[in-house]
Amino acid sequence: MPDTSSLSLNTATVRRQWTLAQIIDGCARHGIGTISPWRDQVAEIGLKESARRIRDAGLALSGYCRGGLFPAIDRAGRRAALDDNRRAVDEALALSAPCLILVAGGLPKDGDGRIASKDLIGTREMVRDGIGELLEYARPAGMPLAIEPLHPMYAADRACVNTMAQANDLCDTLGPGVGIAVDVYHVWWDPALKREIERAGSASPSRLVAYHISDWLVPTTDLLLDRGMMGDGVIDLPLIRSWMEGAGYRGVHEVEIFSAANWWKRDPDEVLATCKARHRDCT
Amino acid sequence: MPDTSSLSLNTATVRRQWTLAQIIDGCARHGIGTISPWRDQVAEIGLKESARRIRDAGLALSGYCRGGLFPAIDRAGRRAALDDNRRAVDEALALSAPCLILVAGGLPKDGDGRIASKDLIGTREMVRDGIGELLEYARPAGMPLAIEPLHPMYAADRACVNTMAQANDLCDTLGPGVGIAVDVYHVWWDPALKREIERAGSASPSRLVAYHISDWLVPTTDLLLDRGMMGDGVIDLPLIRSWMEGAGYRGVHEVEIFSAANWWKRDPDEVLATCKARHRDCT
Repeated sequence: MPDTSSLSLNTATVRRQWTLAQIIDGCARHGIGTISPWRDQVAEIGLKESARRIRDAGLALSGYCRGGLFPAIDRAGRRAALDDNRRAVDEALALSAPCLILVAGGLPKDGDGRIASKDLIGTREMVRDGIGELLEYARPAGMPLAIEPLHPMYAADRACVNTMAQANDLCDTLGPGVGIAVDVYHVWWDPALKREIERAGSASPSRLVAYHISDWLVPTTDLLLDRGMMGDGVIDLPLIRSWMEGAGYRGVHEVEIFSAANWWKRDPDEVLATCKARHRDCT
Repeated sequence: MPDTSSLSLNTATVRRQWTLAQIIDGCARHGIGTISPWRDQVAEIGLKESARRIRDAGLALSGYCRGGLFPAIDRAGRRAALDDNRRAVDEALALSAPCLILVAGGLPKDGDGRIASKDLIGTREMVRDGIGELLEYARPAGMPLAIEPLHPMYAADRACVNTMAQANDLCDTLGPGVGIAVDVYHVWWDPALKREIERAGSASPSRLVAYHISDWLVPTTDLLLDRGMMGDGVIDLPLIRSWMEGAGYRGVHEVEIFSAANWWKRDPDEVLATCKARHRDCT
């Protein structure tokens, strides 16, 4: 039975209710010792102020969200994405994050935000090259990158890295300095999940750098913002945790729930208390 | 550029507007020579009447929708599913369908229709065993079965066969008499798609027994009923067709669009004319 010392809160879970400052206070109050903040929340109160508050509250980080979104329709766009990713690495370092989470990005968009290419294979090559270029900056700086495979339903518009096998293949190609963030919401369905977790864990060093939990609801009413609280859905969370641990993962379990119609509307203190209880009883 | 002789209409595409009898007449009127009907539509006008009307209109079938849904919470439920699948085989034979499409089924449900188990691995074993038992009936009867991998977003509630690799693995296990229905909507995102199409095509006999087309819309507003007309989304349909043809597929291209908010609300003659034009220009 996991205890709260192995729980981390991804700050998106209560982002509609609280600022980062309030989330930090809330976590300290609830005895949650680890968080994974988002760049927009950090920017809102400033990087130095964020680092100071996190330190003063005695919190650790399990990751920093997020870099990535590499594909762009032209060279200038890809260059801008790379520059922004370098800034994300700098911020992750300033916050003492253990890794920068990377969401690959989807098919390139035009100036109006509309998808401008159907070349999924070429887009995946852009992602490989983008991570490779970022690694040249992140590796000497000592900031691990964590590729997060996203559910295939996001392949077009958010992330074209959609399976653990694909992420492992990317790690094979890119070499050290890049690992994988395993988010159960995105990968729970994958028939190859156990095998690919083992593959990631048996790499040297292990590629298993982050573990995110939530649940898959039936029915799911929105592709993006209808994630479930652990225990409310169909994912066998203890089983997947056992695979992670069997593959050597000893890090925290980061709760990340986007839930516009439910958890984002609740009292955030109730949300944190529920995260703790469900983490203990259902994961 | 594909011509209308290679077009088939999955009758779900206009099921809200027309009965099967009207669809048969409509296809004959529009010069669409092949359809793939659904069991509920056939039952509505009767099996013999359906067969007579299809024959009198000079239509061929590209498949029969659908069997499957093997998992159940107890032995009686699995037995009932198998019996129903045997009846589906009989109907497919009576209609001279070239294959029975199988949608695997999701996690077992209780009497109230709520998911009663999180055992995805065990559910996949039930599917394997269910297809194996059905094969004992379908193989001697000469009715090919076609496993249709469904998009991973349906893994919980509709089908736990979610990739071409998984379908190919099942075919390896089950032996002759079972192939694969490749539906672009479900598999377009898969990094292994080309390889697994080649694998299916190089089996002897080829496993590529059906090819379904539509498009993935961005944004997708509903997990089930927001499929796009070819050309309105992001799938590189000519590329995937080239992979199918490169792997030896010479069958028709079956349009299957579930679209509650758009195409199911339109004049069905307009829908058929649009299917023909988009099939010619966008696939």
